[in-house]
Amino acid sequence: MLDYNVRGGKLNRGLSVVDSYKLLKQGQDLTEKETFLSCALGWCIEWLQAYFLVLDDIMDNSVTRRGQPCWFRKPKVGMIAINDGILLRNHIHRILKKHFREMPYYVDLVDLFNEVEFQTACGQMIDLITTFDGEKDLSKYSLQIHRRIVEYKTAYYSFYLPVACALLMAGENLENHTDVKTVLVDMGIYFQVQDDYLDCFADPETLGKIGTDIEDFKCSWLVVKALERCSEEQTKILYENYGKAEPSNVAKVKALYKELDLEGAFMEYEKESYEKLTKLIEAHQSKAIQAVLKSFLAKIYKRQK
Amino acid sequence: MLDYNVRGGKLNRGLSVVDSYKLLKQGQDLTEKETFLSCALGWCIEWLQAYFLVLDDIMDNSVTRRGQPCWFRKPKVGMIAINDGILLRNHIHRILKKHFREMPYYVDLVDLFNEVEFQTACGQMIDLITTFDGEKDLSKYSLQIHRRIVEYKTAYYSFYLPVACALLMAGENLENHTDVKTVLVDMGIYFQVQDDYLDCFADPETLGKIGTDIEDFKCSWLVVKALERCSEEQTKILYENYGKAEPSNVAKVKALYKELDLEGAFMEYEKESYEKLTKLIEAHQSKAIQAVLKSFLAKIYKRQK
Repeated sequence: MLDYNVRGGKLNRGLSVVDSYKLLKQGQDLTEKETFLSCALGWCIEWLQAYFLVLDDIMDNSVTRRGQPCWFRKPKVGMIAINDGILLRNHIHRILKKHFREMPYYVDLVDLFNEVEFQTACGQMIDLITTFDGEKDLSKYSLQIHRRIVEYKTAYYSFYLPVACALLMAGENLENHTDVKTVLVDMGIYFQVQDDYLDCFADPETLGKIGTDIEDFKCSWLVVKALERCSEEQTKILYENYGKAEPSNVAKVKALYKELDLEGAFMEYEKESYEKLTKLIEAHQSKAIQAVLKSFLAKIYKRQK
Repeated sequence: MLDYNVRGGKLNRGLSVVDSYKLLKQGQDLTEKETFLSCALGWCIEWLQAYFLVLDDIMDNSVTRRGQPCWFRKPKVGMIAINDGILLRNHIHRILKKHFREMPYYVDLVDLFNEVEFQTACGQMIDLITTFDGEKDLSKYSLQIHRRIVEYKTAYYSFYLPVACALLMAGENLENHTDVKTVLVDMGIYFQVQDDYLDCFADPETLGKIGTDIEDFKCSWLVVKALERCSEEQTKILYENYGKAEPSNVAKVKALYKELDLEGAFMEYEKESYEKLTKLIEAHQSKAIQAVLKSFLAKIYKRQK
């Protein structure tokens, strides 16, 4: 169960803890223990992610994950996958207790993981009640709700958490770094907008998967942006074709996206986000933290997959 | 969601925290703050229980809980119930952080809840893989496996956790009280054996529900005790009729239980357990802790429901 669900991802989040901690140490070599501990925290995030994915796949009734059947679809698993998700989650605290119990920042670490888990569950809740509550209804979708879902469901655990772990290891008090949280949450939202864009416009070959946000009636940045730009007639087309599995419906939505120049809108959004984030980062008083944030931004800016 | 799932139980576990803490204070009146805090910890256990029940009901495909449909069976809920379970669970740490963050025992409290949650998830895992893995196979059932499921799935969170919470509030170090844990886990096992017995032999009117352990192929104390006492021929009857929904099959199992005098076996077990537990309790050096454990035992000894 552990091999099936924890392994096989890109490990971006886990590796970010190690990378960030290195940058915070400003070129000093890590001791063997520091390397080990930052890797352990990185793995905690990967286990957290595995836990979310196992449960989300059941809730979304997904078919595949990381190129293999979702765990709950394995013949002998089924709903036992729920308890497996819980076991994955419980191991985070076992890892933390085993390796960090004596550290002065142990309590903060435990509180951090609990808080971020709660934020992510809240994001999943907003997503589920927005997407599945009663009939499919596009009028519930807006830039504001999109931002809220993404902030809670993705940004905290994917962007803030790795850096917060590194900061705690470096002896920092997280209460002094709310500005870092703000930048990383904004970066997480930018990352998810890219994700939404690539789902529709990227070459499936490069992306490594075929996007299905339109078929799945997802609250994607593209559809909320489209709703903002649509004439009355175009809105009607969107309502009639969004969230349907037939290729002809999907094609009509994609044609509308082209007509509304959502590619241009995305380029503009990407440029603005980059500039805004760069400005925020450069205003930060600590060069080491600037380096951490810049390295994060460089990893995702203009990504193609 | 919270009203539907947290309320409606008997609150035995939650109230045990308050009762135990009072006994540890040996008759001294609780301050308003102590009353509030012990109630808050009691509620944490009730929320933990709500979280387990919401998820267990999905995994067991149950129909009703506390006299109403299981949460996941409500029309607009379905698999969203998984995330609701997670939200229930996350609130435990929100309650702990809000009210106990400044207490010297905060870390121990958080570790305790994490450890007990893990033990319970392990119990659920052993239960699921024993009961559902492949074909129904009675040969997997034994007193030893029954004990292991019950110890992990029920005893830690229902019996040890409330007393451990009270001990932490009273300033005790849990590492000095492993003997208390042993007694409470044994008591929890005795409690579950009663539960298994009552499921089959109690008057449904008094019990407040109709037992279905035989139909559900449960690893009940009765079936493992029966397997121990069966002749070859009786074993055959058990294998042929256990775990089937038809009343005629259930009746055959019940007749066999009578034939094997499982009622007598239970009376004997109950008497032995009571004597063993009493001896263990009276050997304890602290009168206050003796009072806590005796009060627990008195609540469950010879219960009819």
